[in-house]
Amino acid sequence: MRVRLDISYAGAAFHGWATQRGLRTVQGELETWLARLLRCDAVALTVAGRTDAGVHARGQVAHFDLPEEFSVSDFEELELVRRLDRVLPSDVVVRKISLAPPGFDARFSAIWRRYVYRLADGTFDPLAAGYVAKVISPVDVTLLNQVSGVLLGLHDFVAFCKYRSGATAIRTLQRVSAERVGEIIELTVQADAFAHSMVRSLTGALLQVAAGRRDESWLKALLDRSDRCGEIPVMPAKGLTLEAVGYPPDCELEQRATQARMLRELN
Amino acid sequence: MRVRLDISYAGAAFHGWATQRGLRTVQGELETWLARLLRCDAVALTVAGRTDAGVHARGQVAHFDLPEEFSVSDFEELELVRRLDRVLPSDVVVRKISLAPPGFDARFSAIWRRYVYRLADGTFDPLAAGYVAKVISPVDVTLLNQVSGVLLGLHDFVAFCKYRSGATAIRTLQRVSAERVGEIIELTVQADAFAHSMVRSLTGALLQVAAGRRDESWLKALLDRSDRCGEIPVMPAKGLTLEAVGYPPDCELEQRATQARMLRELN
Repeated sequence: MRVRLDISYAGAAFHGWATQRGLRTVQGELETWLARLLRCDAVALTVAGRTDAGVHARGQVAHFDLPEEFSVSDFEELELVRRLDRVLPSDVVVRKISLAPPGFDARFSAIWRRYVYRLADGTFDPLAAGYVAKVISPVDVTLLNQVSGVLLGLHDFVAFCKYRSGATAIRTLQRVSAERVGEIIELTVQADAFAHSMVRSLTGALLQVAAGRRDESWLKALLDRSDRCGEIPVMPAKGLTLEAVGYPPDCELEQRATQARMLRELN
Repeated sequence: MRVRLDISYAGAAFHGWATQRGLRTVQGELETWLARLLRCDAVALTVAGRTDAGVHARGQVAHFDLPEEFSVSDFEELELVRRLDRVLPSDVVVRKISLAPPGFDARFSAIWRRYVYRLADGTFDPLAAGYVAKVISPVDVTLLNQVSGVLLGLHDFVAFCKYRSGATAIRTLQRVSAERVGEIIELTVQADAFAHSMVRSLTGALLQVAAGRRDESWLKALLDRSDRCGEIPVMPAKGLTLEAVGYPPDCELEQRATQARMLRELN
């Protein structure tokens, strides 16, 4: 039996999602508490989006497999959501825990990840300072939306990514759009998947154009590069939130997971 | 010439509004930067609501008097809002700076202060954890709104206040109402003025009733006490935000200030 978790967290006090020895991470915190509540040696979580240090999440999805001795009613009696709520610190919340449909894999079944980067180019509510990045130059949101179209579709985003041996940055960007919401600018970026630091670099590159320091042809040329581009500022982690992860209808979960796994191996 | 400031801040990293030697306070931070930008020895701010350590503000109001050598155009050329935005840390924002109308006094002209206490009795967005207090017991918001009416009007709120020599806690409570906004409960409390720790104690007392631990008669009896009541939990500072301060029409500013000053002296 596979269990799906829907998770939110504030990234400030975590060294990212993935377990690192001796450091506080979201995965570490959750695996520790799940193992205690399930009274088993260890729980291994698989996650949809391995967020970096300081990045927040509102719609993170993960899964783990229940030890074999558990029945459905055992699982339900555990009341994991309620009990996790009692023990977890206030910067991580497990919103929902459910038995996953057959073929579900939090990472490989996902068909999209949606991030929002929040920034402000003027004064803004200091209560939001934990998840909004301040920028000095005024942002031309209309211009940003005009030029962002060149990034859509299947591209090699290597110019925007930190190098990782053996990994490619070929991704399909499905949506890039910005809007002012009160004093804050929300830049929504959605793709089948993202490579390391990709959203923060995409945001940084778009802001270069929206502030008038670069033009559309510079942005377009980035897609032709075969190496990381040092001219792109990587925006601070605190502005970034993983908002949602999309999955296909249940009947396509397994097929999607198989495809995604093959693609990763080809890469 | 008197200058009015409209200020927002996140309280977590401040030891409250009022200057304290060796501690970081909102008043200290602002007075230091204003004196630097005005190139004068010292600026003395008068504030509408002296918030405690950890309490936030979205609609705080303060004033100071410009040194005599400044003209209106000198003041305008200073562009204080823009320059403060450049130098102030991200947890305090001066939203607006304007020349105050005759008779204006940020403290004594005010006719009401409105606070909102934010709490959650279930899971909630961890990005909001800095300004929302978590409570364990479910809150009956309907019941809370039913009983809160007994607190309205002119009362001695001494049961709800930390003792301060020579100060009274006679206040007119103008509004108490709670509502669920998504996952959060917002308790709005408005009065002509508040005594020390009064909003957090009012919230604590109302939650005792809303959680079924006390009844309306207990709440009502608190208003007849002549000393602080140890049965009232003082809620954590981080849930509290000063949202707005109200002033009368300009022609009544001076009269109101005179009245309020006299009342304070009688007290």
